[in-house]
Amino acid sequence: MKIFVVGLGLMGASYAEKLTQKGHQVYGYDINPNYVKAAQEDGVILDNSNLSRLSSADVVILSLYPEHNVTFVKDHVHLFKKGAFITDISGVKQSVVHDIESVLREDLHYVSHHPMAGRAKEGYQHRDPDMFLNNHFLIIESERASLTDYELIEIIGKQLGFKTLTRISVSLHDQMIAYTSQLTHMIAVSLMLGYPSESHRFTGDSFRDLTRIANINEKLWTELFLSNQQDLLHAVDIFKKHLNDLEKAIKNNDQETLMNLLRSSREKRKDFENDPT
Amino acid sequence: MKIFVVGLGLMGASYAEKLTQKGHQVYGYDINPNYVKAAQEDGVILDNSNLSRLSSADVVILSLYPEHNVTFVKDHVHLFKKGAFITDISGVKQSVVHDIESVLREDLHYVSHHPMAGRAKEGYQHRDPDMFLNNHFLIIESERASLTDYELIEIIGKQLGFKTLTRISVSLHDQMIAYTSQLTHMIAVSLMLGYPSESHRFTGDSFRDLTRIANINEKLWTELFLSNQQDLLHAVDIFKKHLNDLEKAIKNNDQETLMNLLRSSREKRKDFENDPT
Repeated sequence: MKIFVVGLGLMGASYAEKLTQKGHQVYGYDINPNYVKAAQEDGVILDNSNLSRLSSADVVILSLYPEHNVTFVKDHVHLFKKGAFITDISGVKQSVVHDIESVLREDLHYVSHHPMAGRAKEGYQHRDPDMFLNNHFLIIESERASLTDYELIEIIGKQLGFKTLTRISVSLHDQMIAYTSQLTHMIAVSLMLGYPSESHRFTGDSFRDLTRIANINEKLWTELFLSNQQDLLHAVDIFKKHLNDLEKAIKNNDQETLMNLLRSSREKRKDFENDPT
Repeated sequence: MKIFVVGLGLMGASYAEKLTQKGHQVYGYDINPNYVKAAQEDGVILDNSNLSRLSSADVVILSLYPEHNVTFVKDHVHLFKKGAFITDISGVKQSVVHDIESVLREDLHYVSHHPMAGRAKEGYQHRDPDMFLNNHFLIIESERASLTDYELIEIIGKQLGFKTLTRISVSLHDQMIAYTSQLTHMIAVSLMLGYPSESHRFTGDSFRDLTRIANINEKLWTELFLSNQQDLLHAVDIFKKHLNDLEKAIKNNDQETLMNLLRSSREKRKDFENDPT
């Protein structure tokens, strides 16, 4: 297939490199000309990549920040090949999917997806075509999508190397991601902001693990947080409720309640580890 | 040196194995006779280890839960060799150090320490003599300790392979550990307890990293939390304050404040990574 990857940052470049390895003709574009040059030299994308190649691409993968994916489609929809298949990797879906669908031509196919994979460091130079192994690939259900459309995005997910592929509604996606991804980033940031930092010698693995993602891309995550406001605030409430339960048990010297809460946590974490998916 | 390790769980067995490798005569004891037998067979401790060897040990390392370390000293203080050096690995210090010092004979030397290292899995079978590399070793200051006492515990810390050795007051220790270790465990547990667990396919690395320590030993951590109550509740307050700031900015759609908070977090995490210690 002729695939056009829009945005050659960490994610887009990892996609492009993996799909090139899989034998596709991969073109790529980035507003940073250095990324394009490097990607061409490294064989991540084809030598003759430029924006005009968009018109011959069977598949377009939008790997920009959520709002930029929308803007890119608005500005370039007239260039897409007739009947082309469009997808995007945005980390929140409700607003993005709605906005993209509202500007697409009728002949274009579109299924959004979310690769549940990442790295603490951004940018083309940190790309890794194998970063998707052992991770989950979420496919957003849509009235617009045909069976063939789902099959095509599933082929792409498999070729990228994802462990599981799952179809999910846009609202359930945003609700779950609020808890498992956005809340975790809020927690890491809060923990880092309150860190006394008198000496790093008072830290162990647990603090390092919990704050690794506090090295956060502030533009991307401000956008992700604000575009999933209601689900995220609900996730924060759930987390705070459990933290308050623990806090109260500690305040009251309530050994039994504390022990029960910690036991539930241990059992839940074990089930999580043992899940076969 | 003749070293006697009390408790052959994850930590004690890792200590014993490493110190045996360093050429010491290491005896060990555990209430679980299977641990003692296995440790003897594996060469982790000497074949002829039994409780009576306590009387010939130059160094006694207490690797039980905090309160059990205190009880062990109370019950066996009459057996310690004259002039022996005692240390313990308890994760909280204020109460333990006070209680141990109050029952020690005058001829005995005692310096408490905290190895800032761990594993998500407990027990003899998960021991790892190299688990201390790249980690921090905290030595608790005490009026009772002489320069020679500090030097001895520093030798032990170095031989175990710790990256840094730092002397710290008992109160600063408990205050810092409340934030960097106990709070992180409370957070992981709360995040796990609130997890919707509809499908693990909606999770990525961040959720897995933040909940790894939610697989918690409920007896040990109930004791650790309750014996450092005030410092821990203060740490929770600091964390919640920052979480509330983020929450408020999201609620108010306040892009600028949110961006600034995330930027501070990123910068603080980068400083943390780049710290040479």
